[in-house]
Amino acid sequence: MRALPRDVTISIGVMWTMWNKLLIKTIPSKFVHEIRKFSVSKMAKSRFEYVKSFEQSDTLLKNCWIVVRVDGKGFHKFCDVHGFDKPNDRRGLNLMSLAAVNVMLEFNEIVVGYGQSDEYSFVFKRDSTVYERRRDKLVSYVASLFTAAYIFNWQYIFKDSLPLKYPPAFDARAVLYPTDENLRDYLSWRQADVHINNLYNTTFWNLVASGLTNAEAETRLRKTLSSDKNEILFSEFNINYNNEPAMYRKGTVLLRKKVTVADNKSLSLIVPIFDDMIGDKFWQTHPELLDGKAKSNDPFDIGADIEHVLVQYQIEKHNKRKEGMKRKHETS
Amino acid sequence: MRALPRDVTISIGVMWTMWNKLLIKTIPSKFVHEIRKFSVSKMAKSRFEYVKSFEQSDTLLKNCWIVVRVDGKGFHKFCDVHGFDKPNDRRGLNLMSLAAVNVMLEFNEIVVGYGQSDEYSFVFKRDSTVYERRRDKLVSYVASLFTAAYIFNWQYIFKDSLPLKYPPAFDARAVLYPTDENLRDYLSWRQADVHINNLYNTTFWNLVASGLTNAEAETRLRKTLSSDKNEILFSEFNINYNNEPAMYRKGTVLLRKKVTVADNKSLSLIVPIFDDMIGDKFWQTHPELLDGKAKSNDPFDIGADIEHVLVQYQIEKHNKRKEGMKRKHETS
Amino acid sequence: MRALPRDVTISIGVMWTMWNKLLIKTIPSKFVHEIRKFSVSKMAKSRFEYVKSFEQSDTLLKNCWIVVRVDGKGFHKFCDVHGFDKPNDRRGLNLMSLAAVNVMLEFNEIVVGYGQSDEYSFVFKRDSTVYERRRDKLVSYVASLFTAAYIFNWQYIFKDSLPLKYPPAFDARAVLYPTDENLRDYLSWRQADVHINNLYNTTFWNLVASGLTNAEAETRLRKTLSSDKNEILFSEFNINYNNEPAMYRKGTVLLRKKVTVADNKSLSLIVPIFDDMIGDKFWQTHPELLDGKAKSNDPFDIGADIEHVLVQYQIEKHNKRKEGMKRKHETS
Amino acid sequence: MRALPRDVTISIGVMWTMWNKLLIKTIPSKFVHEIRKFSVSKMAKSRFEYVKSFEQSDTLLKNCWIVVRVDGKGFHKFCDVHGFDKPNDRRGLNLMSLAAVNVMLEFNEIVVGYGQSDEYSFVFKRDSTVYERRRDKLVSYVASLFTAAYIFNWQYIFKDSLPLKYPPAFDARAVLYPTDENLRDYLSWRQADVHINNLYNTTFWNLVASGLTNAEAETRLRKTLSSDKNEILFSEFNINYNNEPAMYRKGTVLLRKKVTVADNKSLSLIVPIFDDMIGDKFWQTHPELLDGKAKSNDPFDIGADIEHVLVQYQIEKHNKRKEGMKRKHETS
Repeated sequence: MRALPRDVTISIGVMWTMWNKLLIKTIPSKFVHEIRKFSVSKMAKSRFEYVKSFEQSDTLLKNCWIVVRVDGKGFHKFCDVHGFDKPNDRRGLNLMSLAAVNVMLEFNEIVVGYGQSDEYSFVFKRDSTVYERRRDKLVSYVASLFTAAYIFNWQYIFKDSLPLKYPPAFDARAVLYPTDENLRDYLSWRQADVHINNLYNTTFWNLVASGLTNAEAETRLRKTLSSDKNEILFSEFNINYNNEPAMYRKGTVLLRKKVTVADNKSLSLIVPIFDDMIGDKFWQTHPELLDGKAKSNDPFDIGADIEHVLVQYQIEKHNKRKEGMKRKHETS
Repeated sequence: MRALPRDVTISIGVMWTMWNKLLIKTIPSKFVHEIRKFSVSKMAKSRFEYVKSFEQSDTLLKNCWIVVRVDGKGFHKFCDVHGFDKPNDRRGLNLMSLAAVNVMLEFNEIVVGYGQSDEYSFVFKRDSTVYERRRDKLVSYVASLFTAAYIFNWQYIFKDSLPLKYPPAFDARAVLYPTDENLRDYLSWRQADVHINNLYNTTFWNLVASGLTNAEAETRLRKTLSSDKNEILFSEFNINYNNEPAMYRKGTVLLRKKVTVADNKSLSLIVPIFDDMIGDKFWQTHPELLDGKAKSNDPFDIGADIEHVLVQYQIEKHNKRKEGMKRKHETS
Repeated sequence: MRALPRDVTISIGVMWTMWNKLLIKTIPSKFVHEIRKFSVSKMAKSRFEYVKSFEQSDTLLKNCWIVVRVDGKGFHKFCDVHGFDKPNDRRGLNLMSLAAVNVMLEFNEIVVGYGQSDEYSFVFKRDSTVYERRRDKLVSYVASLFTAAYIFNWQYIFKDSLPLKYPPAFDARAVLYPTDENLRDYLSWRQADVHINNLYNTTFWNLVASGLTNAEAETRLRKTLSSDKNEILFSEFNINYNNEPAMYRKGTVLLRKKVTVADNKSLSLIVPIFDDMIGDKFWQTHPELLDGKAKSNDPFDIGADIEHVLVQYQIEKHNKRKEGMKRKHETS
Repeated sequence: MRALPRDVTISIGVMWTMWNKLLIKTIPSKFVHEIRKFSVSKMAKSRFEYVKSFEQSDTLLKNCWIVVRVDGKGFHKFCDVHGFDKPNDRRGLNLMSLAAVNVMLEFNEIVVGYGQSDEYSFVFKRDSTVYERRRDKLVSYVASLFTAAYIFNWQYIFKDSLPLKYPPAFDARAVLYPTDENLRDYLSWRQADVHINNLYNTTFWNLVASGLTNAEAETRLRKTLSSDKNEILFSEFNINYNNEPAMYRKGTVLLRKKVTVADNKSLSLIVPIFDDMIGDKFWQTHPELLDGKAKSNDPFDIGADIEHVLVQYQIEKHNKRKEGMKRKHETS
């Protein structure tokens, strides 16, 4: 909608020409841009422009892992209104992950995404310089991108079976972790959270499905330990909790991997993984996460997950882009 | 998707009962909640939970005006891909304003919205306690809400004539202004900006429409003053710039007003206004903006703008809600 | 102890000469300095220098009043060890004020100082640009200056009657106030604090002086109201609290005033005032405090306070400086 | 000077008694304090007290090394006025280190001090909770302590040969380093700085001593490399730079060590070390610095430095304290 005002370049014309022709190379390059910006801003400067100086920088400390976590606002109601399955709606969770994939496609500097329930965490690598590590910019843009992708891809996931009745929204926060251990503990914390919640919710909704009211189910579960809930599930509903889908029990981990697709071609994809991150094994299997110079165990054996909607989405996108370029090439 | 884990309340059962029954009234109420939260978190506390303490509060200074401004990311390309009219696309601007109206419907504490080009500013009143004035929360949620409303209402504005090819995104920042004068200067700054840009762009695109290449038009305008551009528009294109639509020249101001609609009924609406905010008159006409206790000049005479898409959108929404409640009432 | 390393200027010699001789005037002046700094730093840059970029700016919001308050660390013990009078040691309080005067002589941008007990508040004017409003610099330097002046002037106040047994220390904090009302309320808060504490302490120490143990005096005062304490003072000790020295009841306000000293000469001095700041009168009497453009009621009628140690200290300092300059002049 | 107002405890008397007698153990201990504070503050609360809420916390990120560096203000002039030797004044540097020792005696959580020229850096360990890691408190108190100790110990170092003409002041800043490598690089940066400056200054002042004006010496050194300066020192002044005192070339490192003093008794002392910190050897010799659990190579062989003024100062202090306790014991 906007083009840069060009009349600002008038007054610095002579100066500019001299610089460009004679001296530009003697000025440290970072200043060429700075000086230009300054000159431009000076011209445009009205007596009001001083207000810009009230902006306060909030730069995230260097060499720390940056975790940006988005959280759904009022998702309890959102799930009710849209009749999501309880305790887990497979398509709803996949749409969250699809939104996350789109965030990761925008930010190369995200090394891991991790989602559960109505939240998604994105881990930016230590040396990320994204938006000069400005907190405002980062949290707002990630929240916006996530929201945009969630809404735009609603139909991709739900087809015409479920119309979006109103748009959801998300907030975001940024947290810094100085050491690898702190980062691992952060991800472990979120994964421990999904375990506790999902075991409770699975038992709760099975009790409700069996005829209890919500209040009765709650009373029944009050004071129970994990083992008690496992026992209820097994003895009353014939459910072995450990056989529940890994996505529900572990959440979704998103990693960047080279994947061999059809015809032995290799694609860089963001792949969903449903593994335990609390133990050491995960980090030994994916050494590139903590150590940017470590060799990834490529190509990644994606197995049956090649059919996963997140993977198919990316392959389709890749193919469309390729076709688009091909067509362009043929036209020209 | 999530329910609170209830087994955490076990271990504090006895204590809790005593409190509830005997002493609850002797404890300052703010602590009842705090203690409960603490007890709950203590139970849920795994060895990982310490990572939560790495979150750093960034609370916006009290008693300052908070301005949250959202800015489109890559909107130049977005406008091109969707074939928006140049230099101004009326529907595109209205969709921005419709998104802004939705943000203002969510946050009562916004007293003014102001939009131009691909940006929108929201002014939260001095004593706003929204999200405890946490910067992260505020900027991310406003950006998300705005994005959600923009995408969700795309069809409301463009009907089926223009499909959304990909979703746009926005970032946001928060800036504090300690005095009313600073706040007025902020809004004047943004409004001066739209004037400079729009005069340039109007001339530029008329030159292009008349046959010049972009580069030729740019060369033609280099070193021209405002008066030169007015002259070009008038003498070459028979355009009196001052007769251009106020929305293009002034941007859109959104204010909360009581409006008399059909049947002498009065509705609280967010109304679009296209007035100059730089002079004193605007602030004298709307004294309630700077002084929460000042009487608003209600009911606001909306005139022909009753037909404005932003107003109609809100009236429709209001009517639907009323009908919904009526139906509910009849059913029960 | 240090001189700037000059060998860093070598490599930019040619460039620098060209600039200085030919083009310096065409570069916006603020960049000349920036570029020089950059070039210098680039030269000095070792592979370690990157660590400097971990410093995080913490700039205090513009156009707010900045209050820096210093607080004594462990002053209870410090007063005991030095046998200060209880509840108030006149000389101890004057030494605090003398330290404060020295801080205000260093920072022209402080408009008011206010001290009571072991704390002193300094109000920097709204548009102060001291240290680019960097929080770290400001609080640490004020704390250091205050400490230095307190220790260095110990003997000026206590003469040889009381040696300094160990040096005291102070911390400092910076707080921002957006409006004049907020600032006035801050000062009122501190002054209300001295009233409550001093009335309590005066009664407490009179009770102790009359033979009660500390514990007995505390028990006696438990649950008493202000009126009760006034009554105890009056009926048991024949003390009318309102006749106690204003410095003890009101604390010390330091203002910059033009004062007529001997021979009708006028000096700019920092004068101590022991007035109530809670009511409006104080602010009407000194309109220049809130409004930098308001006319001060100069010359200030200092009355008997011309003999106050703080005033005499400054007059002596002034005279010494004048004599020093005179001598210098005669020598040359 | 101040005692806590005790009348605030009135109104919560009944509540308090019940708590203390019956339930205190059932409330998480952290809340007992919180509730008490709240109740107290509530009572003392005037209509002004709200201003306290304008204080903004600035908590230093957890699990990072905190470096607080104090820097002399206007030390060039201070050195001139007091006639300090150039380029290095041994006693002046020792006084800096003595001030630093006093800071380290106050803060157990400082693991390394490092000083050169008019600056001193203090490294707080990663898990330090000093002042809840509040930036304001930390930088202001360290600056104040350092200043206090510098002035108070002036006579200890300079005896009566050099009176303190005016008190010096220092500012301070806090910087965070997330990794051990970053911290080592910080210290290497400061140590590389002293090398560059000291070589320059040593050559410069020898040239001046040999008869050149300051300007001539500066011209002579312009464009010289390190090797050139070494050559000048050697050929013209017969000085092998590497034989200059290590304290001048390397700065002063302060470490906590167990030292064997007279009679095979072991004392915990802060010892000065003049070693290179850039290579690995230093860190291998003192593994306890980076790893709090590593075994220190105690007792530390202090050698001739047992006579160093910093060490003697601490031994004297230790002996005085012991004698004081002995005397107390004999009296009672």
